[in-house]
Amino acid sequence: MFAGILEGNAAQQRRAMAKSITLLESTRADHRAQGDALLTQLLPHTGKAFRLGISGVPGVGKSTFIETLGLYLIGQGHRVAVLTIDPSSSVNGGSILGDKTRMEQLSVHEKAYIRPSPSGGNLGGVAEKTREAMLVCEAAGYDVVIVETVGVGQSETAAWGMTDMFVLLQLPNAGDDLQAIKKGVMEMADFVVINKADIDAKAATRAEAQITSSLRLLALHGSAEQHDGRHWSPKVMQISALNGTGVDAFWNTVQAYQQLQSGNGQLHKRRQKQAMTWMWERIETGLKQAFRQQADVQALLPQLQTQVLDGQLAASTAARQLLDVYAGAAATNPQLLQSSKEGGSA
Amino acid sequence: MFAGILEGNAAQQRRAMAKSITLLESTRADHRAQGDALLTQLLPHTGKAFRLGISGVPGVGKSTFIETLGLYLIGQGHRVAVLTIDPSSSVNGGSILGDKTRMEQLSVHEKAYIRPSPSGGNLGGVAEKTREAMLVCEAAGYDVVIVETVGVGQSETAAWGMTDMFVLLQLPNAGDDLQAIKKGVMEMADFVVINKADIDAKAATRAEAQITSSLRLLALHGSAEQHDGRHWSPKVMQISALNGTGVDAFWNTVQAYQQLQSGNGQLHKRRQKQAMTWMWERIETGLKQAFRQQADVQALLPQLQTQVLDGQLAASTAARQLLDVYAGAAATNPQLLQSSKEGGSA
Repeated sequence: MFAGILEGNAAQQRRAMAKSITLLESTRADHRAQGDALLTQLLPHTGKAFRLGISGVPGVGKSTFIETLGLYLIGQGHRVAVLTIDPSSSVNGGSILGDKTRMEQLSVHEKAYIRPSPSGGNLGGVAEKTREAMLVCEAAGYDVVIVETVGVGQSETAAWGMTDMFVLLQLPNAGDDLQAIKKGVMEMADFVVINKADIDAKAATRAEAQITSSLRLLALHGSAEQHDGRHWSPKVMQISALNGTGVDAFWNTVQAYQQLQSGNGQLHKRRQKQAMTWMWERIETGLKQAFRQQADVQALLPQLQTQVLDGQLAASTAARQLLDVYAGAAATNPQLLQSSKEGGSA
Repeated sequence: MFAGILEGNAAQQRRAMAKSITLLESTRADHRAQGDALLTQLLPHTGKAFRLGISGVPGVGKSTFIETLGLYLIGQGHRVAVLTIDPSSSVNGGSILGDKTRMEQLSVHEKAYIRPSPSGGNLGGVAEKTREAMLVCEAAGYDVVIVETVGVGQSETAAWGMTDMFVLLQLPNAGDDLQAIKKGVMEMADFVVINKADIDAKAATRAEAQITSSLRLLALHGSAEQHDGRHWSPKVMQISALNGTGVDAFWNTVQAYQQLQSGNGQLHKRRQKQAMTWMWERIETGLKQAFRQQADVQALLPQLQTQVLDGQLAASTAARQLLDVYAGAAATNPQLLQSSKEGGSA
């Protein structure tokens, strides 16, 4: 698989990529060990792509935007991978057909690789699989990786945590910026793009002014770093993805960001920070999982929970009792704790 | 101590409360066991107070507001406890003197009990001590417990997670509501109070309109529950704590909230949810602590961290290796895992 990803012909490479990603998505312990070995082999060949996060509420026009941008980038000589984070895809039965319909030309282009969100598992698991798929795409030579989120819940935070630049698509509607601020998405944005500017030019200009002012107010309380020219401050612009207007200006801004943040070392720092966060998130998930699966904890938990809910036991006392039981059980029956090794994506 | 809290004379009770809270704040394992026993004894005598969270940025006038409100409530026959969540108090050397100066009359009143934030430890530890101190105050018959936060960082979330009603104090300044929305504090607020309305009546009225509109926009995307009359929707009002204007109207609103939320069962549900969250937070903290303190993990971590930062090892692979080492070590040396029982507040 490894060799196929790096140097196979186009069709062989595609098959090797699909096979690798499927292996990495498996929760079987032996697959997981093979997957880890593969990742370690791939790593030296990764990291050279630009990782672009794209977020926005349903209806904002993400698919059209990514289709337009992807074809534009291919025209410029890039190879483009599109990954999606959508923890709900397991519920609605996956989105493979969806992606092909959504990005009609891009999905069949030989210089594009589109992979829908892995299905099953919670957001943490889905995000981890997406990160690993991104590494596969990078090793295969895709030099722009777009991570798209469905724009609901915590998937934006996950996309932000694995990309070099985070773009928020907005509609020219009043109050939409408030929603984005509320969810903390506006604060994460390096670049806010008002899509569908063709529909109502006045509204789009109003939205641009409103968002610019919001970003300024948010930055007022941010770190001083953002205010000198050596660091990026978030930009706002209008486009119409449907008409293709503004896509070149969009990409120029992305390139200006990439140049600045590479030069000042922020891009490297950001990736290092993301890797550490990812490692600790994975550890915490593993610890919690082992705890919840441990037999003595499972036996005691319902009763203590009831006592806490009925006000007979302080929550902190119950927590200490459960931790003690867990520590004691791990000592006498190591196999139980070992369960943290399996089912890596939960 | 237990008897002293319930039925001692005023001076005896105060001593018993202080002694109990000090015991509960201790991280020594034997103290912790005694503390848990005390909590279990106290619990049936707790829960009858109304728990009021009060938050706002420095300078908004929290101390003056709490002094005014506290004296007003004592005048109405209540006994008032004031607890503070301030994780920074260990840095600046505690705030006991501060509290006495800040709330001059309330701090010496026999029907008030003011306890500064416990010093030392992170927010999770500080919050846990505050929760436990609250139970001591309730058992001692204080029927209004005010939990004040310093209005920075995550301390609001902690206060929200232990109170029946969360009040946000705001200044009549433009853009302040945006900050509160950004930090997620506006969304937690059951009641927003614009203080210092006496200084600039026009600005206060503008702020009230602005916040009302923000709350409406935020609620638009909230649950449908909030929109019928059987559930509370957040209120906004102006006061001047310095002049004492509006304090009776404030308390009337609090009582209306208490009545509605008791009747529809929301208050009970909220407390049950808070207790479960508290328990799981404590468990997660204990699991992480045991992991970080384990010798094999400590030996391996620096090297893996370096490999991840240098791009030689995927973060998820490093996490799995550390979890495996931890599980193996716990199996052969149970004493290491047992460390999770001690240092309960970290």
